[in-house]
Amino acid sequence: MIIGLIGFGNVSKNLVKLIKSDDITFITSMEDRSPKTIDAIEKSKIKVLDTFKDVAVACDILISANSPKSALEAAENYGKFTKGIYLDLNNISPDTTFKINQHVENLVDGAIIGKIDSPNPYLYISGEKAEELLFLNGFLQTKKISDNVGDVAILKLLRSSYTKTLSAILIESTELSREYDLEEEFFDILSLTEGDNFREKSISRINNTLNNSKRKSEEIEEIINYFNKNNLSMVRAALKKLNQ
Amino acid sequence: MIIGLIGFGNVSKNLVKLIKSDDITFITSMEDRSPKTIDAIEKSKIKVLDTFKDVAVACDILISANSPKSALEAAENYGKFTKGIYLDLNNISPDTTFKINQHVENLVDGAIIGKIDSPNPYLYISGEKAEELLFLNGFLQTKKISDNVGDVAILKLLRSSYTKTLSAILIESTELSREYDLEEEFFDILSLTEGDNFREKSISRINNTLNNSKRKSEEIEEIINYFNKNNLSMVRAALKKLNQ
Repeated sequence: MIIGLIGFGNVSKNLVKLIKSDDITFITSMEDRSPKTIDAIEKSKIKVLDTFKDVAVACDILISANSPKSALEAAENYGKFTKGIYLDLNNISPDTTFKINQHVENLVDGAIIGKIDSPNPYLYISGEKAEELLFLNGFLQTKKISDNVGDVAILKLLRSSYTKTLSAILIESTELSREYDLEEEFFDILSLTEGDNFREKSISRINNTLNNSKRKSEEIEEIINYFNKNNLSMVRAALKKLNQ
Repeated sequence: MIIGLIGFGNVSKNLVKLIKSDDITFITSMEDRSPKTIDAIEKSKIKVLDTFKDVAVACDILISANSPKSALEAAENYGKFTKGIYLDLNNISPDTTFKINQHVENLVDGAIIGKIDSPNPYLYISGEKAEELLFLNGFLQTKKISDNVGDVAILKLLRSSYTKTLSAILIESTELSREYDLEEEFFDILSLTEGDNFREKSISRINNTLNNSKRKSEEIEEIINYFNKNNLSMVRAALKKLNQ
C-alpha cells in the first residue's frame, strides 16, 4: 500500500514514525516546499516524487496535513487526481470540510486528538470510506465516529465549545478569588473534587487563553458562526469575556 | 474541654463520631427539638442539659450546625451567653456571617468541605480565634484560612461561582452534541484530557443542576448579589441558562 503525504510538518513526520510496516510505502514531493520542509523530508528517508500530482495519482491513500489555510487549495489542486481515499487531517471548520468534499471523490475527515508526538495519539475519522482506514488501528488508536464527512470537524467544535468556555470561567473565578485574597484556598478546595492537578491545569489553561486571546476569540467566533441556530449563551459570554 | 452543640443533624452527629477523646465532652439540649432530633440525641449518648442557654454557658466551644434559616436566630438567642468560641458551620452567605458577628464575642466561621459523613472531611475555618480550634486537626483535617470572619463563607461562594457555572456549560455543550448525534464521542474525546470519570461526573452535575434548578438559580443569585461590584459575566450567563 502507498500513502501519499501533502504537507510535511509535525503530523506527517510523526505518522511516518508511527506507521511502520513492510507493506506500506510513504511518498511525498518537494514541489514548492521550503528549505526547512525539504530538510525534514530528506531526514525522513521516504520516497520523493517530482510533483504532488504524481503523488496523488500513485497513492492508495492521500493524506493532507497542511496549514488550515491551504487545506482547501490542496484538495482542489490534487484531490481530483487520486482514486484512493483522501484523508484530510487539517484543523478546519466543518464548512471547509464540506467544500473540500465537493472536490474529492472519497473524502474521510480526520483529527488527531491529543498530541501527535505523544506515544499514543488518537485518530478520529468519519466518512463513508472511513472503514477502510481502520487498519491504522494497528499503528495508532483509530476510531471511526460516523459515515458523515464533517462529523469529526463538528466534534472538534463541540469539544472547543466546552474547553474554551471553561477557560473563561476559570479566568473569572480566579480573578474574583484573587481580589478577595483567597486564590490559593480557591484552588485548594476545588482540588478536593476536581483532582489534584486542578490548580496546575487551570493556570495553564488561563495563561494559554490570555496569551492567545485574539486567536481564541476567533476560534470561539467560528463556533458561534457554525452553530448559529443553537442557543449558545455560555459560549457567547465567553467571547465577551475574552474581548474585555 | 466541653463542646456544646446547637442543632443535631448530620453535621453534629458526625462530629461527635469523629471527635472522640477522653478530654472532650459533648453537650446539647432537647429544648424545642423535634421527636426525630430527640431520638438522634438519645442514640448519640452525649450529655443533655435543660436549655440551650445552659449549653452556651457551660461550654468552651459552641458549635452552631443548624439550618441556614435559623443560623442568625441561634446566634442572637444563645451566642451572647457563651464565653468560649462560637463556631458557625451553617451554609450561610457572608452577609449573614457578618450579622452573626455582631451578636457573638468570639466568632469563628467554618465549613465542612466534602461530605461530612465521608471518612476524611475537611473543616475550613477563619477568624481571629480560629487558631484555638486547630487542635481539631487530630480528628478531622482542619485548615485555618485567615483571621477574617466571613472568609470561609466568601470562599464557598467563590467555589460555587466556578462549579455552578461549569454545570451551565456542560448543559449547553451536551445539548449541542446530542443535537448532532455526537454526545458519546463528545464525552469520549473530553475524557482523554479531563480524566476517565469525566462522563460520569458531568452527567451527575447536569442532572443535579436540572433537577434542582430553582434552588441552583437562587444560589447563583446569591453569588451575583454578594459580588455585585465585580464583573461576573460568566456567572450571569449561567443564571440565564438555568432560567431558560
